[in-house]
Amino acid sequence: MRNIKLTIQYDGTNYCGWQSQKNGVAIQDVIERCLGKVVGEKIKLVGSGRTDSGVHAKGQAANFRTNSRLPLNNIKKALNHNLPKDIAITKISEANADFHAQYKAKSKLYRYTFSNKAVISPFHRNYIAKIPYRLDLALMKKEAEGLVGRHDFSAFQGARSKRESAVRTVKKIDITPNGKAVYIDIESEGFLYNMARNIVGTLIEIGRGYYKPGSMKKILNSRNRGEAGPTAPAKGLCLMKVNYE
Amino acid sequence: MRNIKLTIQYDGTNYCGWQSQKNGVAIQDVIERCLGKVVGEKIKLVGSGRTDSGVHAKGQAANFRTNSRLPLNNIKKALNHNLPKDIAITKISEANADFHAQYKAKSKLYRYTFSNKAVISPFHRNYIAKIPYRLDLALMKKEAEGLVGRHDFSAFQGARSKRESAVRTVKKIDITPNGKAVYIDIESEGFLYNMARNIVGTLIEIGRGYYKPGSMKKILNSRNRGEAGPTAPAKGLCLMKVNYE
Repeated sequence: MRNIKLTIQYDGTNYCGWQSQKNGVAIQDVIERCLGKVVGEKIKLVGSGRTDSGVHAKGQAANFRTNSRLPLNNIKKALNHNLPKDIAITKISEANADFHAQYKAKSKLYRYTFSNKAVISPFHRNYIAKIPYRLDLALMKKEAEGLVGRHDFSAFQGARSKRESAVRTVKKIDITPNGKAVYIDIESEGFLYNMARNIVGTLIEIGRGYYKPGSMKKILNSRNRGEAGPTAPAKGLCLMKVNYE
Repeated sequence: MRNIKLTIQYDGTNYCGWQSQKNGVAIQDVIERCLGKVVGEKIKLVGSGRTDSGVHAKGQAANFRTNSRLPLNNIKKALNHNLPKDIAITKISEANADFHAQYKAKSKLYRYTFSNKAVISPFHRNYIAKIPYRLDLALMKKEAEGLVGRHDFSAFQGARSKRESAVRTVKKIDITPNGKAVYIDIESEGFLYNMARNIVGTLIEIGRGYYKPGSMKKILNSRNRGEAGPTAPAKGLCLMKVNYE
């Protein structure tokens, strides 16, 4: 059987997220159904992980096994022709037999985009979160450093999470102004449920002065979700890249 | 009475266009209703001109008269707070008593954006038209020069148009590759119904070799809509700027 890897972009605005939920349409299901028609088999698509409702992706990764002999490029063309225009397959490749988009992922890069301008451009309204505060970006950068490394991130774990261990290794957090917006790039070897958005929400509370300087380390060490800031809005978050060996 | 000028951005995807139609919601109506609530009077909003269903604007201009004494910035803030997020007021200013957004417009700049890449990014799907041809941009530039100047543009006038004269002065047409897309910028002292999209559709037919080199002048001189190319898709078109004295 072939094992095929896909790289996927999507505008998550109109979906309930990557994975099936009781309400709404899941991106995974849409691609699975489309793949099934293209290769003529029932397909199980394995994503690198979930993304929430309203969260976007420029580099989601997934794999599926098939007996189809269709050339890769035909599969990609047929998918892009038949998928709704808010989902696109940007790359397709043959993967090793043991490749698994979730278990083999070494790290993921998420980008959060926000702006404190009074008006978000209509063309970016679904991709930039409006954060109506003046923020001390230098302080946010300094506090973010305290999260880099191997830690128990329970304080930033969404209540719905059921993972056994909350220990993850954050490789970097970059905060970069870009025109009217600010990017917060978080690369981690793994993300707990809502972890990226909870880190961003906490950094914003620090940047606007609601938490004192030095709070980030205390919040992290508390391992208590109640100590951290609110979950930042979904639409600002985008899964940029999943790194494999 | 005060005469107030607005500069307006909108994502036209979900509207029937600037002006009221039998079906769908018009951008003008949405802003008028919102303005009426903000200033507490029935407002008549005068736009620089119509844009079609699905056409966007980064610099539409409009004006309205009011007895309200609200400061400009309060009106702008209230509008942006209450308007749907696919419409935004980017500037507001007091205008001379005789300012009229349509009659005083000296020229308009439209930008058409298309791509011949197999896949349009989900994030640009409503703003870039997919044109599935290899195009000779150098030839398109050369042919476009034949349209610059004062001409009868009947050949590029949509059938629904009721203007008395089809003579307009095109000031420039620039064709510029930008990453995976191409911009066609058309500045004219006036545009007939569908003129920008019909010029673009004709340039594309030339660029893909369907019309011979030299065709543009013949099409223009024919004054016959049947000689020109198809109307390019609405979503690629954006009203960038309206110039006043």
